[in-house]
Amino acid sequence: MASALDTLNERIREVADLRHAADLLEWDERVYMPAGGATTHGEMQATLRRLAHEKFTGADVGDLLGRARDELGSADPDGRDARLLAVTARDYRKATQVPAAYVAEHAQVVSAAQHAWGDARQASDFAAFRPHLEKVIALKRQYVTFFPGGAHPYDALLDDYEPGMTTADVKAVFDVVRPRQIALLKVIAGRPQVDDALLRQPFPESGLLQFSVDVASAFGFDWTRGRQDKSTHPFATAIGCDDVRITTRFMDRYPFSLLFGTLHETGHALYEQGVARTHHRTQLEGGASLGVHESQSRLWENLVGRSRPFWEHFYPVLQARVPEQLRGVTVDRFYQAINKVEPSLIRVEADEATYNMHVMMRVELEIALVEGRLDVADLPAAWNRLMEEYLGVRPADDATGVLQDIHWSAGLLGYFATYTLGNLISAQLWERFAAAHPTCDADIRRGDFSALLSWLRTEVHQHGRMFEPQELVRRATGAPVDPAPYLRYLEQKFGEIYSL
Amino acid sequence: MASALDTLNERIREVADLRHAADLLEWDERVYMPAGGATTHGEMQATLRRLAHEKFTGADVGDLLGRARDELGSADPDGRDARLLAVTARDYRKATQVPAAYVAEHAQVVSAAQHAWGDARQASDFAAFRPHLEKVIALKRQYVTFFPGGAHPYDALLDDYEPGMTTADVKAVFDVVRPRQIALLKVIAGRPQVDDALLRQPFPESGLLQFSVDVASAFGFDWTRGRQDKSTHPFATAIGCDDVRITTRFMDRYPFSLLFGTLHETGHALYEQGVARTHHRTQLEGGASLGVHESQSRLWENLVGRSRPFWEHFYPVLQARVPEQLRGVTVDRFYQAINKVEPSLIRVEADEATYNMHVMMRVELEIALVEGRLDVADLPAAWNRLMEEYLGVRPADDATGVLQDIHWSAGLLGYFATYTLGNLISAQLWERFAAAHPTCDADIRRGDFSALLSWLRTEVHQHGRMFEPQELVRRATGAPVDPAPYLRYLEQKFGEIYSL
Repeated sequence: MASALDTLNERIREVADLRHAADLLEWDERVYMPAGGATTHGEMQATLRRLAHEKFTGADVGDLLGRARDELGSADPDGRDARLLAVTARDYRKATQVPAAYVAEHAQVVSAAQHAWGDARQASDFAAFRPHLEKVIALKRQYVTFFPGGAHPYDALLDDYEPGMTTADVKAVFDVVRPRQIALLKVIAGRPQVDDALLRQPFPESGLLQFSVDVASAFGFDWTRGRQDKSTHPFATAIGCDDVRITTRFMDRYPFSLLFGTLHETGHALYEQGVARTHHRTQLEGGASLGVHESQSRLWENLVGRSRPFWEHFYPVLQARVPEQLRGVTVDRFYQAINKVEPSLIRVEADEATYNMHVMMRVELEIALVEGRLDVADLPAAWNRLMEEYLGVRPADDATGVLQDIHWSAGLLGYFATYTLGNLISAQLWERFAAAHPTCDADIRRGDFSALLSWLRTEVHQHGRMFEPQELVRRATGAPVDPAPYLRYLEQKFGEIYSL
Repeated sequence: MASALDTLNERIREVADLRHAADLLEWDERVYMPAGGATTHGEMQATLRRLAHEKFTGADVGDLLGRARDELGSADPDGRDARLLAVTARDYRKATQVPAAYVAEHAQVVSAAQHAWGDARQASDFAAFRPHLEKVIALKRQYVTFFPGGAHPYDALLDDYEPGMTTADVKAVFDVVRPRQIALLKVIAGRPQVDDALLRQPFPESGLLQFSVDVASAFGFDWTRGRQDKSTHPFATAIGCDDVRITTRFMDRYPFSLLFGTLHETGHALYEQGVARTHHRTQLEGGASLGVHESQSRLWENLVGRSRPFWEHFYPVLQARVPEQLRGVTVDRFYQAINKVEPSLIRVEADEATYNMHVMMRVELEIALVEGRLDVADLPAAWNRLMEEYLGVRPADDATGVLQDIHWSAGLLGYFATYTLGNLISAQLWERFAAAHPTCDADIRRGDFSALLSWLRTEVHQHGRMFEPQELVRRATGAPVDPAPYLRYLEQKFGEIYSL
């Protein structure tokens, strides 16, 4: 007779296949689907997601989980089977604790809210979006009640994206980051500004695309287990570890977003390609959390891809790919241009030194909304006040202010924090790697990323979802998420660039 | 309370969504999947197909079918609901009559057989493939026993591709076609041969691709509900009527296969795009049969795309797309070249006048194998004898003879007949259309295909699977499948080209 664990695993494989299929359909929708196919794709998507949910949340799954735990007895709680069971049980608990009626209502509300958000942003009219956001917030406050016992109501939201991470954890970290990063920005503002006009020239798309493929290949992207296409918004998606796809786009206004976007998505893709094949079709496949995922994308995009050693190797390669525009531009000037610091209104266009400020203000606002300390009606004013305080800029309208991001309309509260956690973890991992690999800069100067990828594979990628983020980071670096390495990194890098 | 018909329809929608998703995955596998993803895609595919099968063949479906029939009472048997129920019941009966153990064994046998076939063809070694084909034939003979009561054992195989069509029907039709087409080939062989060397020049892929898109657009392919990509073997696939995708390929050896392949797949696609949206997510979506489907592809590829009126309009367009190669070549010379008749060994490269001969000999051999009159061991000799008799050519080896097609290794017995049925139906439809539209040639000379498409939409496309092929053809043309129009078409067209 099959063991409960075997039977459970078989069920989860079925669920994984349905999710993989739905993920691939989503990729198709965003990359190749003809416009007329939208309804048909919506139907397929809904059926696959519903079946996956039904099969995962069946009462028999709960029963199998209990029996499998008995079978396992007192096995090593950090062993693979024990972690598999623990993570599956956690996911099952979270999936079954939310009533189906709530899920249906949430889907309806965010569908309407996203639509309204698009129109409201177009018209730069927060008032038109306000009733929708009020409904979203009310639903989020209701969601929290399904997970009683949290120290803070925001914990339940955070936990969906950053398992095990609490509001207190995030606040403690942000409280360290905020003043030091504001102080850094103040000093930079007093220094002569870098000239980045060279980046605004017209560049040929094909040359930049070729170059970004050169770099992704050098990083170690496995093209036999992945591919790159174009889409309106760049993204990475994994149909398991053996089919990992990234997308990019070309914008006349900022040609280099094609390159840095590709490096960013390549970071996500390297993570997914590195998850151990033993986790395939289990609840352990994929990344540990959004924050850990973001640490990989930001590490390759910024700590590597905007570093001086990187460009010492790759600048001549780039010059060969786009010879006209960079004739006579030194690597120093280019390096400074791609690292220009300038407080601005839009998060997705923010540089490394200002990005976290955009994130932290959003998280503060979210917490206040969920606590009930802030009314949706007062959100635009609160937004503008924090922009002024943190970045010294003030949006002229809601479109470039409180309405700029899709997240809240999509019900994604608790998500923003993961961007900054990703930044922090990226530097923490890098610092540890560099300490153990004194030749790491020299390696990169030769275009050799094998030691870095191999270290990340061992310390992060292979584990998939086996450990919660804090535990994963502790195992890799000796400490839980710590803001100090990132602050040291920022201060050193921009200290040099701006001669502080 | 929901009616049985409503409940049944809801279940079928779920099944349709799963099939649509599996079909899209299959498209992805053949067009964009990175090689490493093959295993993951196989897992998804197997799970989706299995779930679709389980949901379609559940005992409750049989019960719902019975109750829905009672609800319907004595409604018009040709009405939409009655036909929907009848077709669903037929599909259900066929799906439930085959034991699961047989399906599993069949899948294993054909998987191994296809592998062995690939190797055997490479080595031109029929003996290596023989034991696999013997297993396939034995399974087909077993399959037939699940559908007792047929007048001929081959009926059950044919019925899977051509519902309602019997072996006697096919034999009667082929007995008319065979002697007339052999006679035609004999006369042509006595005439001076056409020179088609101009087609063997190197042509630029992009010019031919652009031109094939020009033509597909003129035919009426709706690009908002479809797209074209490249793949190793051209095919068309429909994710319902609103997302219909075709593929093409470029071969240096025969550049124009890109064009005629595209016109062929466009014919399939126009059919699928034209199925009434009311059939979407029911057992009535898709084409009536493989033969009727092939009638659409062959009509647009050959009756239109290799006709003189077509080229009178489009030849200057083609010349503009590939100016170098066609300089000084008259439309007459070009028209003759693309219609050159020459008996050859390979079915997929055969011209209009010889194609049916390849098909009919395969069908005869299949029937003999299923009847037990022919042993697999004697197949190569029987093949070569028929090639000699029908086409006057004899393969030098098995690779270009009995091993050339994948069908038998894939268990697709009963399939070949549909190619010739498609040819016959295409001419039968065209003759009827032309009789009712005296300006049809003049329309095509102006590049106007709207009357033709509109007629096909009304008479064929919109019905989907509502009528069996013989009934559909009878409704459209006044008679069941009839070989006379196709023979008239061949004799007239090639009589002119070869001055008979």
